Amino acid sequence: MGGAERGTLMRIDRQRLEEAFEALGKIGETPKSGLTRLALTDEDKRARDQLVAWMRGAGLRVSVDRMGNIFGERAGSESLPPVMMGSHVDSVPTGGKYDGQLGVLCALQVIRTFNDRGVRTRHPITLVIFTNEEGARFQPAMIASGVMAGKIALGDAYNARDRHGIRLVEELERIGYLGPEPCAPRPIRAYLELHIEQGPILEEEGCTVGVVEGIVGISWSRLTLHGVQDHAGPTPMRIRHDALAAAADVIRAVRAIPGQVCPEMVTTVGRLEVSPNITNAIPGRVFMTIDIRDPKDKHVTGALGLLARAVKDAASREGVLTELERSWQVSPISFHPEVVGAVERAAEALGCRSRRILSFAGHDAQYMATLGPSGMIFVPSRHGRSHCEEEFTSMDDIEHGANMLLLAALELARQV
Amino acid sequence: MGGAERGTLMRIDRQRLEEAFEALGKIGETPKSGLTRLALTDEDKRARDQLVAWMRGAGLRVSVDRMGNIFGERAGSESLPPVMMGSHVDSVPTGGKYDGQLGVLCALQVIRTFNDRGVRTRHPITLVIFTNEEGARFQPAMIASGVMAGKIALGDAYNARDRHGIRLVEELERIGYLGPEPCAPRPIRAYLELHIEQGPILEEEGCTVGVVEGIVGISWSRLTLHGVQDHAGPTPMRIRHDALAAAADVIRAVRAIPGQVCPEMVTTVGRLEVSPNITNAIPGRVFMTIDIRDPKDKHVTGALGLLARAVKDAASREGVLTELERSWQVSPISFHPEVVGAVERAAEALGCRSRRILSFAGHDAQYMATLGPSGMIFVPSRHGRSHCEEEFTSMDDIEHGANMLLLAALELARQV
Repeated sequence: MGGAERGTLMRIDRQRLEEAFEALGKIGETPKSGLTRLALTDEDKRARDQLVAWMRGAGLRVSVDRMGNIFGERAGSESLPPVMMGSHVDSVPTGGKYDGQLGVLCALQVIRTFNDRGVRTRHPITLVIFTNEEGARFQPAMIASGVMAGKIALGDAYNARDRHGIRLVEELERIGYLGPEPCAPRPIRAYLELHIEQGPILEEEGCTVGVVEGIVGISWSRLTLHGVQDHAGPTPMRIRHDALAAAADVIRAVRAIPGQVCPEMVTTVGRLEVSPNITNAIPGRVFMTIDIRDPKDKHVTGALGLLARAVKDAASREGVLTELERSWQVSPISFHPEVVGAVERAAEALGCRSRRILSFAGHDAQYMATLGPSGMIFVPSRHGRSHCEEEFTSMDDIEHGANMLLLAALELARQV
Repeated sequence: MGGAERGTLMRIDRQRLEEAFEALGKIGETPKSGLTRLALTDEDKRARDQLVAWMRGAGLRVSVDRMGNIFGERAGSESLPPVMMGSHVDSVPTGGKYDGQLGVLCALQVIRTFNDRGVRTRHPITLVIFTNEEGARFQPAMIASGVMAGKIALGDAYNARDRHGIRLVEELERIGYLGPEPCAPRPIRAYLELHIEQGPILEEEGCTVGVVEGIVGISWSRLTLHGVQDHAGPTPMRIRHDALAAAADVIRAVRAIPGQVCPEMVTTVGRLEVSPNITNAIPGRVFMTIDIRDPKDKHVTGALGLLARAVKDAASREGVLTELERSWQVSPISFHPEVVGAVERAAEALGCRSRRILSFAGHDAQYMATLGPSGMIFVPSRHGRSHCEEEFTSMDDIEHGANMLLLAALELARQV
C-alpha cells in the first residue's frame, strides 16, 4: 500500500464535494429534484463545460477525443500509463442525480485533495468523463468507452441515431465536444469507477460500500411484430391479427424466463411502441426491446432460446409476423484482482462495512477492463432505486466511497 | 315510393363519381395510396375547400356551424325539414380513401344527378360533412354530430386537445372553419349515410350492399398503471413493480372477454404508451385504452365488470396502482323502420344482393338518429379491412350503393 498505512489517513473535503454535487445537479434538474440530462443535449454540454472549468481549476491538462470523452490529466513523477478514474454525466429521462456524475465528482474531489496535500504519484492520474453511457438517447449504451476499447467502430458510433433521426456525430459537433484526440485503445495502469449500486443488496445487508468483483453479461434484443391494422369495431375477433395481443404474450413470457433459468437473472421489456396507436384501430405493428442479464453467459444463451420460442409461439397463436434481432451483447467480466484488492484494502483501512458484489448494470468499466486492470466501488442506493427521481445515496456513504477511491487510487498510482 | 318505380330508374354518373373520388383522394394521400388526413389539419382544410367548391358548383347554399360541420342545401318545393345525406372527410393516420369521404362523394353525386335531371323534391336535400368523426386526433369520436345532437357540450368539444395539447377550437379557427351557425339540434326529415362496412360480412356472404339496421353499443375506457420506475439491471425480479408486465396481463384479459360474454362482442387495446420507454428502465407508468363493442348494452356492462376485475387482479399480482375510467359510452341504437325500409326498397328496385346488418363502427348516424329518422347503406370492404392503406371497395359496389342512396333519398324527400 501507499500512504494509507503511513499514519493518519488522507480524507477528501466533504463540504467541497457536497457543494460540487449541488451545483452540478442543477443542470438538467427536474421539478422533483431528479435529472434529465440526455447525452449530447444542451444540458449535457452545460454539465461538461462546468466540469472542464473545475478540471482546469484543479490544474489538470484537459483533452477531448473524437467520441467526446473528456480527459483531465494530473502528471505523475514518471512517464507511465495513468490511473484513470471517472464515470459519466449523462442521465436517463427523469433519472436521478447520483448515477454517473457521482463517480466523476468523487474522482475530481480525490484529485483536489491530492493537490491540497501536495501528493505526488509515480503514475499520472487521469479523470475521465465518458460520452453517452446510458444508452437512453443513442444505442448501444457505453458507446464511447466501447469505441475507446476497440469494440465498437467509430463510424458505427457516429451513425447511431436518436429517436428523431439525429446522428450522434452531429450532436457531438453541435455542442462543441467533437475533439481531436484519437478514441482508441491506450495503455492504463488501472481504471477505477465509483458508482451507485442501483440495487437493494448493500442497503438490505447494512453495508456502506460494495467491492465490485465484476459485471454480469447483458444482452439486448429488438422485436417487431407485424399484425394486421384494422378497425376495432367491425373486425370480428376470429379474423384478427393483433400485434399488441401477441406482444402481451411475449412480455409475460419474458417476465417468466428468470424463473426457468436462474433466480439471479433479470429480464425486462423496457420499451414498447404501438402503431398506429389509436383507440379504435387494431395495432398493426408493435416494436419492443428485451433486456436480459445474468452472471453466466450460458444462462443468457438459455434465456435467448426461451425468448425465441416465446416469440414463435405468440406469433403462431396470433397469426403475426415477427423480426427478432440481437442488437447488443456483452459477456460477463471479472475485475482485476489487484484492483479489487486495492478497493478492499481501502475499505478495511477506513473501517467500512463492505461486501463483494456483482454489478447488474453495465458500466464503462466493462470496456475499460479490456484495456487494463479495472475495478469499481459501489455506494448503496436507498430502496435499491435508480433511473428515477427517487434515486438517493446518503452523503455519509458517499464520503466513505470517495475516501476508498482516494486510497485505492493512491495505492495503484504509487505515492512517492 | 317516389320516382324509383315510375319508369326507368334514375342512375348516378359513375365516371363523374370516380373522377371526384380520385381528385379528393390526392389530398393527404400516403405513399401506399392510403390516406392520412387527421381532423382540422391542413389536409382536412384542403379537402373541405375542394368540397365546398364542388357544392357551390352544384348550386348548393353552403353554411358552416360552430363545430365546423359543413352544410350544402338544395331547396325543396316546400319549407320543410331536409333530408340530410353525408358523412365525414377526416381519416385515421395511414387510413384508407373510402372511410367517410365515400359517403360525402356519393351524396354529392346524387345531388348532381338530381340537378342534371331537373328533379324537384318537397323536402330540401342537404349534404353534410361532419367534423372529426374518427376521434383519431380529438376525442371522443363523432364529436361534432354529438354536439349537434345536444349530447356533447360545445365547450367540452372546444376544449378537446390533441396529443400536442392543441385545442379543437384553435384548429377550427386556424383552418377557417369556425362557422357562425349554431351547432344544435334541428329538425330533419331523415338522415342517410352511405359508408363502407369495414368488416368482412358482406364480402363473405357475396352481398353488394348492406341495409344497416342499427349500430352496436360502444364503450371506451382509459387505464393508467403506476408501477415503480427502476433500473433494468440491478433490480431483482422479486422487488419489481413493472407497469408494463401488469399491462400485458390486462391486454390478455381484454382479448379473452368476448369469449366469456358473447361471440359477437369485440374488444381492443388500440393505444398504449410506456414511460420512460427506454430499454434499460423498468416501466414506471403505462397508459392504455380499451374499446368494447356489442349489440347489447347488458353485454357491454358485463364486459366492463370483467375488465375492472382483470385490472384489479393484474394490479394486485404486480403490486401496481391503477386508475380506470370510462371515457365515452354510447348505447346501441336501431335505425328508423321507415328509413331502413326505404334503403331496402332501393336495393330491391336495383336488384342488388343485400342483407340486413348491424354496424360495429360508430358513425355520425348514431347521433343523427336522435334528431330524426335515420339509416345507413353499407358497401363491402375487401377482406373486411379498413383504417389501413389496404382499405378497398370496388367501383361496381360503390355505384350500386350510390344508386341506392339516390332512390332512398328520393323516396324520403318526396319527388314532386
